[in-house]
This record gives sequence, structure tokens and C-alpha cells, in this order.
Amino acid sequence: MRNFITTQNWSRSELQDVLDLASDLKNKPHQPLLKNKSVAMLFFNPSLRTKTSFELGISELSGTAIILQPGKDAWPIEFGDNIVMDGESEEHVKEVAQVLSSYCDCIAVRAFPKFQDWAIDRTDHVINSFAKYSSVPVVNMETIEHPCQELAHLLTLQEHYGDLQGKNYLLTWTYHPKPLNTAVANSSLLIASKFGMNVKLLCPSEQYHLDDRYINAAKDNCSMEGTAFDISYNIENGYSGADIVYAKSWGSLNLYGDTEKQIASNSQFKHFIVDSKKMGYTNNAVFSHCLPLRRNIKATDEVMDSDYCLAINEAANRKHVQKAMLSKIL
Amino acid sequence: MRNFITTQNWSRSELQDVLDLASDLKNKPHQPLLKNKSVAMLFFNPSLRTKTSFELGISELSGTAIILQPGKDAWPIEFGDNIVMDGESEEHVKEVAQVLSSYCDCIAVRAFPKFQDWAIDRTDHVINSFAKYSSVPVVNMETIEHPCQELAHLLTLQEHYGDLQGKNYLLTWTYHPKPLNTAVANSSLLIASKFGMNVKLLCPSEQYHLDDRYINAAKDNCSMEGTAFDISYNIENGYSGADIVYAKSWGSLNLYGDTEKQIASNSQFKHFIVDSKKMGYTNNAVFSHCLPLRRNIKATDEVMDSDYCLAINEAANRKHVQKAMLSKIL
Amino acid sequence: MRNFITTQNWSRSELQDVLDLASDLKNKPHQPLLKNKSVAMLFFNPSLRTKTSFELGISELSGTAIILQPGKDAWPIEFGDNIVMDGESEEHVKEVAQVLSSYCDCIAVRAFPKFQDWAIDRTDHVINSFAKYSSVPVVNMETIEHPCQELAHLLTLQEHYGDLQGKNYLLTWTYHPKPLNTAVANSSLLIASKFGMNVKLLCPSEQYHLDDRYINAAKDNCSMEGTAFDISYNIENGYSGADIVYAKSWGSLNLYGDTEKQIASNSQFKHFIVDSKKMGYTNNAVFSHCLPLRRNIKATDEVMDSDYCLAINEAANRKHVQKAMLSKIL
Repeated sequence: MRNFITTQNWSRSELQDVLDLASDLKNKPHQPLLKNKSVAMLFFNPSLRTKTSFELGISELSGTAIILQPGKDAWPIEFGDNIVMDGESEEHVKEVAQVLSSYCDCIAVRAFPKFQDWAIDRTDHVINSFAKYSSVPVVNMETIEHPCQELAHLLTLQEHYGDLQGKNYLLTWTYHPKPLNTAVANSSLLIASKFGMNVKLLCPSEQYHLDDRYINAAKDNCSMEGTAFDISYNIENGYSGADIVYAKSWGSLNLYGDTEKQIASNSQFKHFIVDSKKMGYTNNAVFSHCLPLRRNIKATDEVMDSDYCLAINEAANRKHVQKAMLSKIL
Repeated sequence: MRNFITTQNWSRSELQDVLDLASDLKNKPHQPLLKNKSVAMLFFNPSLRTKTSFELGISELSGTAIILQPGKDAWPIEFGDNIVMDGESEEHVKEVAQVLSSYCDCIAVRAFPKFQDWAIDRTDHVINSFAKYSSVPVVNMETIEHPCQELAHLLTLQEHYGDLQGKNYLLTWTYHPKPLNTAVANSSLLIASKFGMNVKLLCPSEQYHLDDRYINAAKDNCSMEGTAFDISYNIENGYSGADIVYAKSWGSLNLYGDTEKQIASNSQFKHFIVDSKKMGYTNNAVFSHCLPLRRNIKATDEVMDSDYCLAINEAANRKHVQKAMLSKIL
Repeated sequence: MRNFITTQNWSRSELQDVLDLASDLKNKPHQPLLKNKSVAMLFFNPSLRTKTSFELGISELSGTAIILQPGKDAWPIEFGDNIVMDGESEEHVKEVAQVLSSYCDCIAVRAFPKFQDWAIDRTDHVINSFAKYSSVPVVNMETIEHPCQELAHLLTLQEHYGDLQGKNYLLTWTYHPKPLNTAVANSSLLIASKFGMNVKLLCPSEQYHLDDRYINAAKDNCSMEGTAFDISYNIENGYSGADIVYAKSWGSLNLYGDTEKQIASNSQFKHFIVDSKKMGYTNNAVFSHCLPLRRNIKATDEVMDSDYCLAINEAANRKHVQKAMLSKIL
């Protein structure tokens, strides 16, 4: 039994197999690979692309998706062990995971961090609790990592460039009025480094470093692939020579839980917006973003509407890679 | 590629083809006409009949429906062009429409007006934005028109009367404690006039006229069909000679955005309720309403429970006409 | 046409037929018994197990489930007769039931009591109104009874014990910080007594008696089966000799509508928690609960994690019994 919670415990060749199957499914979308299989999809947070691409993708493979929103249409869930449950939660993840395992062949979970205490959020305890108590594979639909987005991102880049080995990959922080999740940024470092690219992280200051777990994993991946890992605080230097620009906004982990300070900090760096001047420093790079994206905040209309913007392609590829991944683990 | 946003750019014979296919599907509901096809259904507002009839109808044709509720389970969407998105919206319709077009074969939208400024609402910018940026057909599940209701209404009347040419059709305003959408009223004028009926609009005063766009379209349709179009403010005169009575409440466009004044205005006209005395003025007319309907407010129990009330039949026909329409455009 | 609103108007042998089909479906879950059939599922309250097990079960039988949440994604509904609908409700159950009957082959309803006036709630008017106006079978997904839970409970006990005739069955009240629905408790008495067990109700005091309708029905069932029905207020005496312990918390009907007093009353009886000391008084009993369950409030971790706890099995059996029941009535 294999979970898909992080790409870090999948090898590059295993992931490439998933991407190859995704290409195949892109050409032939309706195959009964999930016939008589079902997936319980638990959304603790909103979703457009993830819900649509999973639900439809499962249907295209003749499977059944069940959508659940704990705390909204289902009961609130407790995750702590040995707890006297006298608060708001009506049931324990231990029961939820076992019951859903009895009904379905897979449990997929979207659970964003709580944005109060990074020491807690970084344990990713919601999805890990499901993994602990489930008897069926557990799939990450975005927690503090977003491995499905990684696969879609990679497939899109491979469709554009072919082999990515040695390409120069930039992950740039970009402005957003709210302090957002680091998941896609963490995932960007993991997957770019795993697939043999020179990875550069551009952010406003050390305050915006990602968690060491992800910085170190990316460094390890790069060292294994013989590529470079760098961090830059200078925009021109950061964009210079890039073949790929991936943008994401996130809140400073150093100010985590203090939303007001995070907002004030972010607002100093509105100039990190991705625009055509910055793209001009690159090696004729492609640009992408995971969406949703606030136009003229994270990236300009000009960038979003350009030929080199692959964001729509990447979103479209979500369906194909998820179908492939589910077919592999089920 | 053909949208179904308004019946005005569909000819009478094209619409009749849809109605004929609907009759066919009513007799033989399970046909694989939408096999391997999918429809993204976006609900910005609540729904009972529309959701059930579309979702089930698509399933009966072997297709897949995906239900999305932007702002609830999906991200809030921006519709303006060239906007710096520093408000509540997390993504732009341009991305949403393109991404959903990449996943699905059709995008269906329910987006009621905002009830603040009719000059804005009358542009129907939500669904028109989807139509502008989508690469798949867009279907109206009620905005400021309700073309699917029109089809169901027509099929129901044709089932009762056969040919409708020259029938006397009354659309009467009726009371409701809140100022409601004009969509079904607008649609009623469009479809009754297009199918060759003499159309009369009965409302409490000029304050309750519908938008000129719809009045004029109905007049044009009637003039093309050689039938009459009239507006009446007198109840007995309005009902007199009618073969069909269709009722709908709406808020005065002249007081649009001032909910308190609209409510006060409406409350003067509680006597517009459809009752058996008024039905007695007619030519033994049938009665219908789009539902939901507040009993003993819009129409009496006696009318709703009468043999001449076709509201349930009309609601039931929603499924059949929508299946036919989707089969035509997909 | 047969509703499934209460097990009381189904005979023991009819119910056993359902259970036998459920066992069959458990071994062979994918059968086209509901091909071209659809079920409208109306949730007035949250659900995890019920939604998942019904929606997936219907899909496994090749049917289609439509999920509706009146008041959230659908319009609020009026249930009174001859009402001038000038309140919040936008439509009457008479229309909703008829319209859904026109679309679907079955209407399933979850409608908890309002917890204000037991004299009203005990009429179970929501589901009974649907039954009154529907032209298709109506299924209870929990109101003031929970017959689907009954079937799952019975199947689980039969899987463990085989024939249940003469077994000693204990329903014990247990603590919960909120005054909960009596539905599962009522159902527990009905089904245990119907299937030939000696039934004992253990509760803190006469204040916690269940409605006479259910006490008397259980007494009648027991008298028909030649078994005993007892009520106990003493924990040791209650557990003594039990083969089966079923636990449920509920609010005192004598304090119904006064939530503060109910909470205060409940809080006197925290010691009714199911723990291994109490289970030690039994005849090596199995334990079960309908879920959701607050750990260390209703039952201890030790009990929930024990070999004799059948709560997960019972939840898993929900899917199988519901598939069997739907196959029988459709």
C-alpha cells in the first residue's frame, strides 16, 4: 500500500512513470482504470481546480468520488490522542479514517495549516493522522505540501522543454495582501531539485525563508543530481538566466501566527510582482503559477496573458497527473 | 460552438427542435447522448430544481456533472478587466473559464443579479464573462434571464394545448415580501412572444415595467408573428380572455438597490395574488409558475392545488428540456 | 410502494430478508440493482457516514444519488398546511415532494428534531410530510428514529452472535455535553425488542425515559417474542449479564427545549461513560455505538480500541444494509 503525501518518498523514476502514464491518459482520457474503485475526498478548505480535476478524473476512469466537507456538511473532527473530547469536535480521526477505509478505496485530504503555530502546522498532523489510521492509501490534495501540483507543474515543463536536467529554475516569492500557505513553494523546491534543475529561491529577505526541512531536502536533491541550489534576495540577480520562473506568495514563517505583522511585512514587497521587465532578465523563460492568482498583484495582466505563461496548461494537467497517480496506487 | 445564454439568438424552429427532442427523451430517458461528456455547474446562488434536474439529467445521458459553489466551496471570482485584485476575489474569471474549459465540455452558470445597480446587472456580466473566456459552450442556469425555464414552460404549454399560435398569454406580477429577480418575467415575455402568442403584461404600475430590452424584444417578436403585445394595470382587464396565466413577482427596477422602498412598494399590491376569482375572468386558462412559490402569497392554495395548475409539470419538464438542449450543443 | 421511515411497520421476517440481501451485497458489492434509478438525498443536518454510505452504495448498484441541502444550497421549505408563507420559507414541501418525485425514484431525508417542543418534534412532520406528498418511496436517514442504523446494528450483531433470540441487550444512556437527539436510542429499543432479545434500558433517572411510544413499542415487541423488557437506574445492575452493550447519549425529554437545564442535568451523570470496569459486569459483552462518538466522554479509549468494540463494523455495515433496503423498495 502506497500513500501519496509527499514526493520525497517517491523516486524520480517512479514519479516519471506517473508522468508518462499521465501523458498517455491525456491522449486517451476514458479508460476503466478505477472501475469499482471509490475515493473519499475530504475538503477542510475551498477548492476549484482540485475538486473538479479529481472528481471528473475519477469519473473518466469509471471510479466514484465522494465529496465531504468536515465541519460544514460533516462533523468536526478531533486529531489529538488520548483527548477528553469535551470541545467542539464530535468524533475522532481514528473512527473517521477507519470508517472511510471501510467504504472507499482511497482517502484524499485537503487540510491547510491553521496559521497559528508553525511548530504544530509543520507536523502536518491532519493528513498524517489519516495515514496512521487508514487501511487504504491516503492522497494529499494540499496541506503544507502540494504534491499533485508538483506533478502537474513537471508535466507542463516537460511538455515545453523535454528533458529538464540542468535547466535554471527560479521560485520567486510574490506579493499577496494575505499571508498564504507555503505548500506550493515547498513543493516547488522539492520537485525542481528532484528533477535535476539548478534551483534558485528568490525572496525579500531571510524572514521569508521556507522551512529548513524543504530547503535541506532541495539541497540534498540538488547535490544528488550535481546541480546548484541558491537563495537570492536581489530581483535582477534572481531572474537572471532563468529558464523557468515559478511564482508563489507566502507569509513569513518568522511572523507566523501574527497575521497583522505578516500583512505589514508583505506590503513592503509589492514590487516582487512578476512583470515583463523582470521576465526580461531571464533566458527567455516560461512562467507558471499554481492558481488561484490575483492579477496585477502577484503577476501583471501582461505576464498572465503572454505566450510564455503556462499556468492554464499546468492547471489542465492536474486532471491527467492525478488520474495517473490514482491508477498507480489503487 | 453554440452557447445557450438567451433564447433570443435561437430561432423558433431551432427551439422547437430542442422541444421535440425533449419529448423524445421524456419517453426514453436513458440514452448515452452525453457519454464521455462533462458539465461544470457553477452556482453563485441556491438551487433545488435546477441542480437536481441538470445533475440527474446529465447522468441519465451517461455524462458527468461537477457542482461548484464559488465563494463557498470554491474561491471568490473577479469579473472586471484590468483590475488590481486587492479585494476579496482570489482569482479572475479569465483563469476560471479557461481552466474549466480544459476540464469540461460545457460550463453552466447560475448568477443572480446583485440587486444594487440595474445598469450594471443588466449587462449580465458574470455569464457573459464566462462566455467570453471559455472555449466550451456556456449555459444559463438563471441570471437576468432563465432560458431553461422558458423551454420547460413552452413544452408544458404545448403538451396541454398543442399549437400555441394565437393563444392569449398573460404574465402577471404577483406579490412577494422581497424584491425578486426579473429573470423569469423577462424570459416569459421572450418565449411567449417568440412562439406566436398574444402577450399581455399585467403589473401594478409603470414602476413595475420590465427592462425595455425585454419589452422591445417581445414587441418585435409579436410584430414578426403578427400578434398583439399589451401592458395592463387593471387586474380584471388583464386576466380577461387569457388562455394561459403565468405569475412572477419582481422588484421595481425604478427602486432597484433600495430594498426598503421596494419592499414598501410591493406591500401595496398584495391583492395581485393569483386566486380563483381572478382565474374566473379568463378563458378557462391554465396557470403556471416557475417555483419556488410562497403559497397564499403569490398564489392561493386553491389555485396551486387545482387541475389547471401546471407548475409541477413545468418543473418536471426542466429535466427533459435541459437534456435535449445539452445534447444539441455538445 | 413502500416507505422506509420506521422499522415498526416492517415485519421481523421482512427485515431479515433485507439483512440477508445485505450480507449478499457485502460479498458482491457491485451489482446493477439500481440501474437507471435515482435517489434525491435531502440533508437538513450534517452527515459523514450516511452521506458516504448512501451515495457510494447507490453508485455501486449503478444508480445515481443527488445531494441536496435545503436552506444551504437549496431553498428553505415550509411544512405547515394552509399557511400564508410570509416568513423565511420560499416553498412548500408539497411542491418540493412532487417535483423531486417527478425527477427521482426515491426521496431520502435527514431531518433532526428542532429541540424546542417535543410535542411537535415527536410528530416527525418533516419526513411524514414528504411521505404524504411524494409519489415515490421515502427513506429515513435519521429523524426521531434511525432505521438504517438499526439494520446496520442488527447485521453486525448477527455476524458476531448468529441468532440473537434470548440475548441480553443493554441500551445505556451515556454522557455528552450537549442534549442530543433520541433517535438512535428509540431505534435501539425498537430493533432489539423486535429481534427477540431481552431488552434493558439503563438511564440516570426517570427524567431520561424515552418517549412512551418507543417504550411501549419495545414492550409490545418483547411480549410478542416472550422476552423481558426492563428499565434500570443502577449501573452495575444494568450492565450485569448483558451480552450486548449499546450506548447513546440524549437530552432529557422532560427538560426539552431548555438547553441550559438539559446541559446541567447531563453534567451530573458523567460517570455513565462506558468504561472497562462497567464492561466487566457483563457476560463478556460486545459494545457498539452509532458514531460519531466523543472519546473519553461517551466511552473510554480503552473500550473504543478493544476487540469487543463493534462500532466500526456497524458503521461499515451501513453501506450494505442501505443498498439492500433500497434494492427492496425500488
